[in-house]
Amino acid sequence: MLTEKQQQYQARINQQISQRLDGLGDHAPRLKQAMQYSMLNGGKRMRPFLVYATGEMLGAELVDLDPVALAIECIHAYSLVHDDLPAMDDDDLRRGKPTCHIAFDEASAILAGDALQTLAFDIIANASFTQNGAELNLKLLKILSNASGYQGMCGGQAMDLAATGASISQTQLQHLHNLKTGALIKASVDMAACLSAKIDAQTNKLLDEFSSALGLAFQVQDDILDVVGDSQTLGKPQGSDQAHNKSTYPALLGLSGAKDYLHQLHQQALHALDALPYNTRLLKEFTQFIVQRNY
Amino acid sequence: MLTEKQQQYQARINQQISQRLDGLGDHAPRLKQAMQYSMLNGGKRMRPFLVYATGEMLGAELVDLDPVALAIECIHAYSLVHDDLPAMDDDDLRRGKPTCHIAFDEASAILAGDALQTLAFDIIANASFTQNGAELNLKLLKILSNASGYQGMCGGQAMDLAATGASISQTQLQHLHNLKTGALIKASVDMAACLSAKIDAQTNKLLDEFSSALGLAFQVQDDILDVVGDSQTLGKPQGSDQAHNKSTYPALLGLSGAKDYLHQLHQQALHALDALPYNTRLLKEFTQFIVQRNY
Repeated sequence: MLTEKQQQYQARINQQISQRLDGLGDHAPRLKQAMQYSMLNGGKRMRPFLVYATGEMLGAELVDLDPVALAIECIHAYSLVHDDLPAMDDDDLRRGKPTCHIAFDEASAILAGDALQTLAFDIIANASFTQNGAELNLKLLKILSNASGYQGMCGGQAMDLAATGASISQTQLQHLHNLKTGALIKASVDMAACLSAKIDAQTNKLLDEFSSALGLAFQVQDDILDVVGDSQTLGKPQGSDQAHNKSTYPALLGLSGAKDYLHQLHQQALHALDALPYNTRLLKEFTQFIVQRNY
Repeated sequence: MLTEKQQQYQARINQQISQRLDGLGDHAPRLKQAMQYSMLNGGKRMRPFLVYATGEMLGAELVDLDPVALAIECIHAYSLVHDDLPAMDDDDLRRGKPTCHIAFDEASAILAGDALQTLAFDIIANASFTQNGAELNLKLLKILSNASGYQGMCGGQAMDLAATGASISQTQLQHLHNLKTGALIKASVDMAACLSAKIDAQTNKLLDEFSSALGLAFQVQDDILDVVGDSQTLGKPQGSDQAHNKSTYPALLGLSGAKDYLHQLHQQALHALDALPYNTRLLKEFTQFIVQRNY
């Protein structure tokens, strides 16, 4: 079931991306190409998957989930393009392909990231949903800006840079990742819930527990793969965290400690899903995929 | 009258900036400092001035204009921080002070720009206005995202990079500047008009004519100052456009031709203001200041 749904949602988001970016004017062709390159590079589409799977589980319309999935993926893609820059993580490869500043140039990569961030807000501001009016767009925009900026993803990336080469506690590492990667993963689930028929406070609380555990689990497995993974399968050099002296879970807890923590987070995510009065089978399979993936 | 109002609005926007940025959490102190440094660096505050002056002329409340002035200045500041980066214009000085990546580092400058862009959308999404509901916030967000992204400022900056060292026509140069600097200047006036009591289509049309002419006039005078200005007064090296082989009005029309064109744009702006059924004295004085400034 998971593979089929992953393919379905991937095809759907890729179609959304192509359509939206093709529709941009042709006045700045190199920038447009850099934006297309950064968005259509074979990502796992984890955040769009979460938007679609959570939304469908809660009874939302796929057509209402499209702009949300697209906007979240724009924010994610912009963050990767900027994180890969020489002044940041200085990565030449991403998913086995040259990063944006290698395929184009640094100026184009900076601008493509900037324009993709704006596009995310533009998409939600201009989305027409089957129900509700401006209130819904505004609610989504508040979630998206809160998850992306200083109090979310950008702040987490700055904390990550500050922690590089430094010694930090597990609490600090968790705070960092809750912002750097967790905020956008949580926003994917939150925004999907906004597009569904009224759900109660308990459901919202359980969805929060699920997405928080999943976000951290994703990061812990990412850190583990950097130690035990294979460069070719990863599409980027194995061991780069250690080479860059990054703060990671294996560095803090040891490889075995990191694996135990991952197992614990996996169980937390499953418990939250078990308590939800919805068919959570797809989200459970997806959670298993996230903690067991090898790329 | 102009000087007094400029001081009043500058004090007001500086207060808004300090308050909003001080209120950010302390989890990423270097990023927060880089954002504060980039926003509180003694700019002319042209866009906030336009928001306040246009809004007051049309009867809007100052307190409603605050978030709009602040958001526009966040977008402007982020664009300067990114434009100054080594991979873009590679400028070490801005208003006589080290640029953000010199005072901090490139990674902090990239992130500060990113987080300031998000903050702009966050501010408008969360603003409480004295009248209207979510519809107004959403209308402002649409204007802001349209002016900032690929179809506005970012696209214009990409066109500027593409035009560097190339030969382009006056029509192309005008298109470039309408996007690069004009879009945000026009948005300042548009957004202020949204916050005012209902204004008619003719007023909107005249405001558009005014802001389009003012935006171009600003750029033409900028280009002229790069030729005839004084590095110390400018706060940046005179002659840098020529050194970078930039497409400019003096390069295209000659210095005298550029001055004639500036005069023509000044007259267009004044004609539009003359036709407005409001007290346009302050905006007229401001327009004169923009075309005659020496910094």
